[in-house]
Parts: sequence; C-alpha cells; structure tokens
Amino acid sequence: MMIVMKPEATEEQIAAVADRVRSTGCSAHVSTGEVLTVIGAIGNRDRVQALGLEGVAGVDHLVPILKPYKLASSQFRKGERSLFEVDGVEVGGGHLTLIAGPCTVEGRDQVLEVARCVSDAGASMLRGGAYKPRTSPYSFQGLGREGLRLLQEAKRQTGLPVVTELLDVRDVEDVAEVADVIQVGARNMQNYNLLTEVGRSDCAVLLKRGLAATLEELLMSAEYVLKEGNERVILCERGIRTYERSYRFTLDLLAIPALREMTHLPVVVDPSHAAGRRDWVGPMSMAAVAAGADGIIVEVHNEPDAAICDGPQALATEEFAGYVQQLGAVSAVAGRETAAAV
Amino acid sequence: MMIVMKPEATEEQIAAVADRVRSTGCSAHVSTGEVLTVIGAIGNRDRVQALGLEGVAGVDHLVPILKPYKLASSQFRKGERSLFEVDGVEVGGGHLTLIAGPCTVEGRDQVLEVARCVSDAGASMLRGGAYKPRTSPYSFQGLGREGLRLLQEAKRQTGLPVVTELLDVRDVEDVAEVADVIQVGARNMQNYNLLTEVGRSDCAVLLKRGLAATLEELLMSAEYVLKEGNERVILCERGIRTYERSYRFTLDLLAIPALREMTHLPVVVDPSHAAGRRDWVGPMSMAAVAAGADGIIVEVHNEPDAAICDGPQALATEEFAGYVQQLGAVSAVAGRETAAAV
Amino acid sequence: MMIVMKPEATEEQIAAVADRVRSTGCSAHVSTGEVLTVIGAIGNRDRVQALGLEGVAGVDHLVPILKPYKLASSQFRKGERSLFEVDGVEVGGGHLTLIAGPCTVEGRDQVLEVARCVSDAGASMLRGGAYKPRTSPYSFQGLGREGLRLLQEAKRQTGLPVVTELLDVRDVEDVAEVADVIQVGARNMQNYNLLTEVGRSDCAVLLKRGLAATLEELLMSAEYVLKEGNERVILCERGIRTYERSYRFTLDLLAIPALREMTHLPVVVDPSHAAGRRDWVGPMSMAAVAAGADGIIVEVHNEPDAAICDGPQALATEEFAGYVQQLGAVSAVAGRETAAAV
Amino acid sequence: MMIVMKPEATEEQIAAVADRVRSTGCSAHVSTGEVLTVIGAIGNRDRVQALGLEGVAGVDHLVPILKPYKLASSQFRKGERSLFEVDGVEVGGGHLTLIAGPCTVEGRDQVLEVARCVSDAGASMLRGGAYKPRTSPYSFQGLGREGLRLLQEAKRQTGLPVVTELLDVRDVEDVAEVADVIQVGARNMQNYNLLTEVGRSDCAVLLKRGLAATLEELLMSAEYVLKEGNERVILCERGIRTYERSYRFTLDLLAIPALREMTHLPVVVDPSHAAGRRDWVGPMSMAAVAAGADGIIVEVHNEPDAAICDGPQALATEEFAGYVQQLGAVSAVAGRETAAAV
Repeated sequence: MMIVMKPEATEEQIAAVADRVRSTGCSAHVSTGEVLTVIGAIGNRDRVQALGLEGVAGVDHLVPILKPYKLASSQFRKGERSLFEVDGVEVGGGHLTLIAGPCTVEGRDQVLEVARCVSDAGASMLRGGAYKPRTSPYSFQGLGREGLRLLQEAKRQTGLPVVTELLDVRDVEDVAEVADVIQVGARNMQNYNLLTEVGRSDCAVLLKRGLAATLEELLMSAEYVLKEGNERVILCERGIRTYERSYRFTLDLLAIPALREMTHLPVVVDPSHAAGRRDWVGPMSMAAVAAGADGIIVEVHNEPDAAICDGPQALATEEFAGYVQQLGAVSAVAGRETAAAV
Repeated sequence: MMIVMKPEATEEQIAAVADRVRSTGCSAHVSTGEVLTVIGAIGNRDRVQALGLEGVAGVDHLVPILKPYKLASSQFRKGERSLFEVDGVEVGGGHLTLIAGPCTVEGRDQVLEVARCVSDAGASMLRGGAYKPRTSPYSFQGLGREGLRLLQEAKRQTGLPVVTELLDVRDVEDVAEVADVIQVGARNMQNYNLLTEVGRSDCAVLLKRGLAATLEELLMSAEYVLKEGNERVILCERGIRTYERSYRFTLDLLAIPALREMTHLPVVVDPSHAAGRRDWVGPMSMAAVAAGADGIIVEVHNEPDAAICDGPQALATEEFAGYVQQLGAVSAVAGRETAAAV
Repeated sequence: MMIVMKPEATEEQIAAVADRVRSTGCSAHVSTGEVLTVIGAIGNRDRVQALGLEGVAGVDHLVPILKPYKLASSQFRKGERSLFEVDGVEVGGGHLTLIAGPCTVEGRDQVLEVARCVSDAGASMLRGGAYKPRTSPYSFQGLGREGLRLLQEAKRQTGLPVVTELLDVRDVEDVAEVADVIQVGARNMQNYNLLTEVGRSDCAVLLKRGLAATLEELLMSAEYVLKEGNERVILCERGIRTYERSYRFTLDLLAIPALREMTHLPVVVDPSHAAGRRDWVGPMSMAAVAAGADGIIVEVHNEPDAAICDGPQALATEEFAGYVQQLGAVSAVAGRETAAAV
Repeated sequence: MMIVMKPEATEEQIAAVADRVRSTGCSAHVSTGEVLTVIGAIGNRDRVQALGLEGVAGVDHLVPILKPYKLASSQFRKGERSLFEVDGVEVGGGHLTLIAGPCTVEGRDQVLEVARCVSDAGASMLRGGAYKPRTSPYSFQGLGREGLRLLQEAKRQTGLPVVTELLDVRDVEDVAEVADVIQVGARNMQNYNLLTEVGRSDCAVLLKRGLAATLEELLMSAEYVLKEGNERVILCERGIRTYERSYRFTLDLLAIPALREMTHLPVVVDPSHAAGRRDWVGPMSMAAVAAGADGIIVEVHNEPDAAICDGPQALATEEFAGYVQQLGAVSAVAGRETAAAV
C-alpha cells in the first residue's frame, strides 16, 4: 500500500502516519519528493487498510499495490493456467469448451430435442435454466424442480454434463444433485452466501460477471468460492452496462486477455445476452474465440420464435452445426486446441 | 407496445405481425408512414412481449409504451404519495426521515454511544449492520446475531426504530425479530427470492438501488416486495458506477425528482458510500434534501478513525448535531415538513 | 511516479528500470516488499512518463502520484480560491453567480425580453447562443453574427455581461468583441487549439465538462487556457453520460466538493441540459447550490413552448423571479455570500 | 414520431397535441389503449421535434421512430454497402483494409523505416500523426508541417496512401495536400465545423467514434461530412469509456455488426488505444476481424520503447509481418475477401 501525503502535509503528520503503519507490524518507507511525500507500507495489506487512513490529517489518498485476490491470481499458480475436468470434459488449458442449450427449460420435448442437437453438433456441455431470475415478478420464473428433472433426463440421453443456475441458497442441494456446473448469474455475482455455498458443493462453478463489476471484483467473488476449497471455477464475460443502447449490453472482449493475465482460471464468453439478437451471436462468438476465450456459452432453441424467454437471441437448432464449424475454424487459427468434439 | 417495422418490410410481413399480435387477444393498429409502418399493440403488454417479435421477419425494433411496474407506479395511487408509519415514525408525505448510525455494529459501547448521540440530535431511526456484504472474503463480515442483539438493546435505550441489512433468506426471521426496517443492499437489489421474503415479513423495507440499476429496474424490484402485500417500501439512491474515479460512486440526485414522478414510494439518499469521505457527506446531504429527498441515511461513528469498516466516510458523533441543524434549515427552504425531531 | 514491478521480476529487470529512471535525471527509490518491488521515481514526471515503461520487461503497471495539472491546482494558489471580476461582476470567492438567458438567440424581441426579465430578477450575467453545436446537420445552427449583434444590444440595455459560446477558432475575434465570457462547450472541451485561442483572448472563459470527461481531464483543459496567461476560467458541471436514460445526462454534483478540493477555480452548474425538463431544473439548481456551487447557468425563455431549441428545459420568464428567490434562500443556508443582486 | 400521453391526460389535451402536430403539415394518428393514448405523428420528423412537445400538458414522452441520419443510413443505399477507392486501394465491400504506422511522426528515419516495414508486410495504407491532440498542454504536440512533409516522403517511397489527423480547420489545406485520408479523432467527433471542412475536401475521411458517443451520434457526425458531398467516409471504433480500468478504453466490438446494419459505410477498428498494451493488440485485432470489421488501424514503431508517444501500445516492426499473417487467416475464416496485399 502506498500512502500519498498532501503537498502541504507537515512533518508531524507524516511521522504520525508512518507510526500508525508501523503499529500494525508493517514497515513504512518514507520517500520525499520535490512536491510531496509518499509512504510505502510494506507487509499485511489488510491491516494497513483497516487503519482507514483516507480520513487522517495530511493524507491525500491511498494506492493499493498488491492485488486483493490471492487464490484466483496468476501468481498463486506461478503462471500455470487452470485445467480441470467436468464429468470427463476438460476445461481450460487450451481447450475450447462449448456450452449450449436453451435459455429456459420449457418442457420435455424442447429440452431433449435441443440437447440432442447440440450433442450431435459437438457441444461440450448442455445449458438450461430451471430457476430464472426475472426483472419482473410477473414473468415466468422457471419450472424449478421439474426443470431439473428434465435436465437430468437430457443428460442421461446425451451424456453431456449439465450447467444450470442456482438462485437461492435453499436450493443448493437440489441443484447440485443434477448439475455438473452450477451457474451463478450476473445479478448474484456479489451474493456472498450463495458463493460460499457453491464453494462447498461438489460441482464446478460458472461465475458470471456482474453487469457493472470490475474484473477485480469478479476475481474477489471467485475467491469466495476458491476459499471454500472448490478449485473448479469458470469465469464468464457476458456484457457490461454502458450508455450505448444499440444492444442490450456491451460485450467486453478486452476482459479476455486481461483476465488471462490476472488469473489462472478459464474464461468463457456468453454472447447471447449482450447481442440480444441471433444474427449477432455468430460474429461475437467468433470474435470471443479469436480474442482467446476458453469457451463459449450460447443459447439454442428448437423453436426460437415460440420461446418463453429470450427467443430472439437463441440460435435455431438447424443453424447450430454450421455455427460450431465456424467456431472450430477460428479456434484453429487462434491456436487453441479445441475440445475433442469441436 | 409499438412494433416498428423495417422500411423494406413487405405487406405480408406487416400482416403476419399484426395477426400474431391479435392472436394474443390484443388489438393491432397499423399506422403506415412515408418511410415505414408502426403497429400499435393495445392490450396485455406481457403477452405481446412473450411473442418475442424482435427476431421476426420485417420487424426493426419494439418500443414499450406502458411501464412494466404497476403497484409501484404513481398511477396506481392516482398521484397520491405514500405515507406510512414505522414504529411511530412517519415516512414519506412531506416528512424528512433521518436514519443514522454506524456502518457496522462493532460492539456494545460503540453502538449504544452512537445510538444515544443520533437520538439526542434528532435522528428518526437507527441504522447499523450486523451482516455485512464484503467484496473480499478476508474482510470482517459482521457480528451476526450478536450484532442484532446489540441493536435491540440500542432500540430499547433510545426508542429509535432499527434499520439493518438482510443478506441471506435463511436469516429473515432473525432479522425481522429485531428490525423495524429491513435493508436490502445494492448488491442484492435483484436477489428476487430475498425480495419476496422481505415482502412477506412484517417489516418495512429499505431497498437500495443497484450500482448499475436503472430507475425502472429499481421499481421492478420494489414490485417484488409490493406484490407480496408489503406496502412499506422506501427506495434509496446510493450512487451509481460511472467512469469517474474521484469518488467511490456518482451520486445521482436527478433520480429524486424522476422517481417522485414515476412512483408514489418515498425516496431517501445515502451520501456516505458515494462520497467515501466525511467532509463531502454534509454538502451532498444538503443537496439531496434540496433536490426533494424524503430522507437521508447516513453513517455516524464515535471513533471514525478506529472504525472496522468505512471509517473515513462516517460522520463523527460530535459533528452530528450541527449536521442535523443544517439539514433542517435546507429542508425548511425546500418546503419539506420535517420530521418532528429534525 | 511509482513503478510497480511484477512479483516475478528479476533483480536485473528491477535494476534496468531503476537505471532508465535515473537516466532522465530523476532519482529512483527501490522498495522491496514481501511480494513485489516498487520503484519510486522522484523528479520530473513528464520525463519518466516519456520512457514508456508500461511495456518494459518486469514492469506491472505505473501509478502516477503527482497531479498532471499545475496552474489549475489548489496547491498553485496555496489553498486560496480564485476570485475575479467579469465586467464588474465578482465570480468565485463565496459569491453565487447566476447566469441566465435563452439557449439560442432567436430574434430581437426574444433576447431583449428575456434579458430584461433575468436582469430584473437579479441574474449576474446573460447567456445566449449565437453559434450552436447541433448533433444533426439538418438542425438550426444559430444566427451567427446577427446573434452576436443582438446580444450586444441586450447588454447595452441591461448592463449584464454576456456569456456566449465559441465553436470555431476562426470566429474568436468576432465573439470576443461581444462576449465578456466565452463559453467552450462540452463537445469542445478537448479542442485544444480552441482552448489556446480563448486563452489568448481578453475574455473570461466558461469551460464545460465533456460528457465523459474526468475531473482531471477537465482541469487539464483548463490548464490549456491558464497556460496562455488567462486566469479567469470558470468550470462548469453539466451532466455526464451514464447508462441511465430517465434524464438526458446524469448531473454529477459530487464534482462540486471534489473540484473545490482539486482546484482554486470557481465551479458553476448547468442543470438545464441534464434534466431536459423545466420542472426538474428548480430542484437540481437548489441541490447544486446546497452542494457548494459557485454559480448556476440556466436557460430561460419568454415562450418556451415556441423555442427553436431545447424549449422543454427552459424556465419561463414568469417563473424566473420565484426561482431566484429560492436559490437565494438555499444559498444563505449553505453559507454562501450571494452576489449583490441575488 | 410517437407521442405518448400520460394516463391522466384529458381529451382536450390529446386533441390539442394532435392539432399542434397537424399544424406542421404532418398527420396525427390517435391510438387509445386501455391505459393511455399514443399519437403517431406521420410526416417530417424535424418539424414535429421542433414543436418541443416534451413540456406540453398531458404529454409523457416522445419516441422517435425514424432514424435522424439519412445519407449514412443503410436504407439510403438500399442495403448495398459502400465500396470506394483511396488512391488505388479499395475500401469496404468485403475487403480488409490494414492501416498501419507510428502514432506520431517523430523523425525521418523513424517514419521511413516503419513505412517500409508495413509496406513490405502488406499494409494497405500508412498512418502517422503530424498534429497530435494531447490531454496535457505540456506534452509533445507533433511535428506539424515538418511531419506532413515526412509523410509525403514516406508515401513517395512506398506508394502507400497516407492517413493523418486534422485538428484545426485552419490546417485543412496543408493536411489535404498530403493526406489521402483525413482522420478526425475521437475528441473532435462533434467538432461540426471541422467535419464540414473535411466534407468539402477531396480526401477520404476516417471518423473516430467519440469516447462516449452513441452509434447514432457517430452516424450523425458522418452525415455532416456526407452532406457536403464527400462520400468516402470510414467509421472507426476505438474503444469507449466505461467504469472498467483494467484497460484504457472498452473496445466495443458489438458496434461492428450493429453499424453494418445501420449504415452502408465501412467500419474499421483501432485496437491500440483501447488495449494500451502491445500484447493485447493482436488478440483484439483478430477479434475485430472475426466480428466483421472492414479493416484495422494499428500503431507500429521501429523502437517502441523509445517512442515519444504511446510506445507501450505500438507493435514492433519485427513482429508486424507475423501479425499480418494472423489477421489474414482470421479474415479468410470470417469470409472476408482480404485486400490484395493482406
């Protein structure tokens, strides 16, 4: 932590701050420049932060130097990237993971038909929502346990691992029974008790970036999961909120190389929610792979025009195989070893 | 709902869309301009939205006309503003409600001393966190039930209603036993199951705007609470996330007149988190009252420099009485009937 | 400048960076912590920045410590705030300056009637646009020189100093002949040649914050004017662009206390463009004064419903006197010495 | 234009608004729903907008239906995309244009060496700044005319068309003498007089999106150029300003498919300024091409570590040929017909 003093700070104020830093067991290096003085606090960052020096006389501002996340940081694994298995599917480490399926589980025929389609085309996992977070209390909120049961059946038929969202800590056991990967949605990225619960489960976790979350905050949320001993965390960029309204969200693909430097965890991209339109999903998926994403999570529907939720952004089953081929081609150019199936 | 067709849409496409609108039981008014055609769908908005027309041939985009919130809307109460009691304290309807107390309950002496101070100075309610949402899993997470117990004691001593945050649906009974007002924090604004639970409680609800939430989304979240029959909802502007980094968040005071037009619910402002510094809390509190806020929720500490959490932004107990006087003066000028005590 | 090295940086890399810093004539203080090393570069910031160390082996990132603005900084005047005269009207130093008038000069009757009204009600200066920056090339672009002539006549009749916008370096002489204060609009905040030209003029300058400009960038633009020897610069907060669409822009009132700390220059607020509606202009003006603004610049029209430009946000002449009274009352509470007339 | 009336609007108010619409020569279609009434104004949008109906009794808000840009719209060319020549190089229409060169022209050796390198590797045009917009008045502002002269020499040696920025209307003739494409930078995107001047020149125009500009505003600025008869406008996405600080700007690649639908004009991407680091330029360039960009404009330097300006984000000349190959491979997969040289 660097403590930048005000230009008019007195020697007494500088000495007082240095003393407070030392009182935490940290050492304090005072550097006096032409205009102002900077005190470098070396040691336990949290203790220095707990001093609340921002309000103290003579202090201008604090500059944190160390990253606040540890287990999620690249340094923690000394630069080696995460690579783990989800029910036989390898994630990270140069593989391209393709997670596909309907936004919402609507019924038996729908989920089985979509599951077969994405399985045939080479997807790595099946996605589908049983519990849906909806802005409006008047919208369809998902089939709940019935939806979970249908996902289980789809898994039995196709062998694809299942990715599904958990909204409520009270449902963690039900969801964990069916899911191979528990999705924590953007709205729950900072629901810390939920993060702790999925951290204690046996499932891998797909953690979506909140729509105004910094990359550092995303990694702090991952840290909540990792801290419970669950190492299988997949990060997901799904678009952030900006002033631009030509699309639902602004897909932030620079997050991919940035996260690949900050963390060892794999990074996938959800192009469907940001684009909000199926004809923009293809270009943005290819762009994400070209930018180095470890995978894509995409919505597919057998009858998009009749979908209960987010139909306009779902790829149609009949166009999915072509989409997979394109991704594979970009992936090859971008130097990714694609998942076996892709 | 207005459906704007593309300029090149054919007559068949226009007719097909109009037919689909009518299939929901809504009527469809087709207006053909020089350049393009607009179809007005009159009737149940949700049914039309469920059609997912955004992806259909010939459709350019949809423009919603009706507000998606109902119980929260000004129209629902025909322009009359909400006014309700919280344990004897009137909120809304021209009263200025002042909620003050520590960010976090740290111990018995601290909470009792701060409670007495804010009570003496004329605050309407006591705030204090027993469960704290923290970005880092390594930070202090609150005293939990012990914190609730201390708040109860402070209430007994001062008579002030208690405002405290609920983070986890599993704690709703514990919190509701002590709280007069349950706070739903910015990070949980779209935690819909939590909203439903507080909607079913007997407590009033203070709902903070998410840091990238639109005013419409805030009202949709309020709708989750109102829908359960709980009419005592207080909205809270606490700063939004923008590109500007000279402060923690950008306090959005235009939200006050805008919300006062959109909804009948009272609107309070939390200046502490956005400012992040105690010397900016005073000016921003006065600004909020001048802009028409129904109240202020502010952090006060007896030893800000030793606070466990957010000390730099807490007002010191010794400056609180002066602060209350200033607020009262602005309130008078702004034509608010201030709460008895203020 | 602090240069934060990567945790895995080698001693050779650290030494190489320190040597490059020293090669600029600056000194380099190396602080080695448990996890990483920080090099403090003490001396001329610009020279160190010019090294482009961000890309060099072993370097993680750079943290600037000194402010990049000098003449605009509070330190430059040792904490004393600017106070200057504009044709007899004092600006800054505790005075509340009220600048009022039409968005656009539309014709002789209009500008004279509005000028008389705002003069009678106690405004400090008259605003009015002769050259208008319009998003659409098909919109009315202002009366140009004829508009300037009418402003001159209004000044002769009322004695009010004139504030008007300059868009094009080629018009600087024409505008300077009539204007007491040249306005540089938000879209031109980083039009550096324009800033240099107004810096060389004899007029005071009202510099509007760009709609995505940081406060630091605003002060850097002020620096362009100050550097030419023109000390009479007034900063103007007029709303920034965020994701929220319930208003045209998000008025950022925290900028007021923040700028009052960063700079000695006076800060005024334009509530009209952000609100976009006249009924929200009053509350936001009072809020700005309560937050400590040195003045307000507001749009007034004699026939708002017939205005060529931005009518819906203009106050009507008949409500202006009441508005001035309210501002004066808030100003008194907020401890400002208001301008004589207010 | 749709005029949405308030639910409580009276019949008189509705009739009055409809009458005002008709007074402009437009027709007014009144649609009365269960909750509220919408008036469709069909005819000249500008005339209806000029009425300023937002403030009128009974009016809730206005919804524009038609796009405000005409010449830039896809409809104007009936869906056919622009394809034009710049000194023998074809731009748009399926070609991938690669514009490369130094950020700033620093001297003869530098610009000639970089020009030769990018020419040899297959770039389509040479970029280089003679006039530089700098946030700080104390930074290097470019070589000016001497820089233009050096670009001319580089063009003579390599045959590459030259892209260079114009900052000041007074320099338009000097710049147009050397430039094949005049760049209008992000800070000047709404400098309308500058747009008009380049619209009157014989040069093509590269128009960069302002850092908080909507796509619609970008097209309105293009309209200023097109309106003067200059049809050779290239749009450029270069990153927008958001809350995220892990990179300089957030590169908004969804703008590519969105702009390709809105306009016939070609869209290129500048990955250098957003990334701010050379190792992220490669992935983001590939992503842009995969997303459908018509070209890339990228910074290349022979000695990036010694560059006067933005060295850390410049590709080194020795890595440029490899970069071009990668772009070509992605381009082939994405189905673009690449420029001859690429």
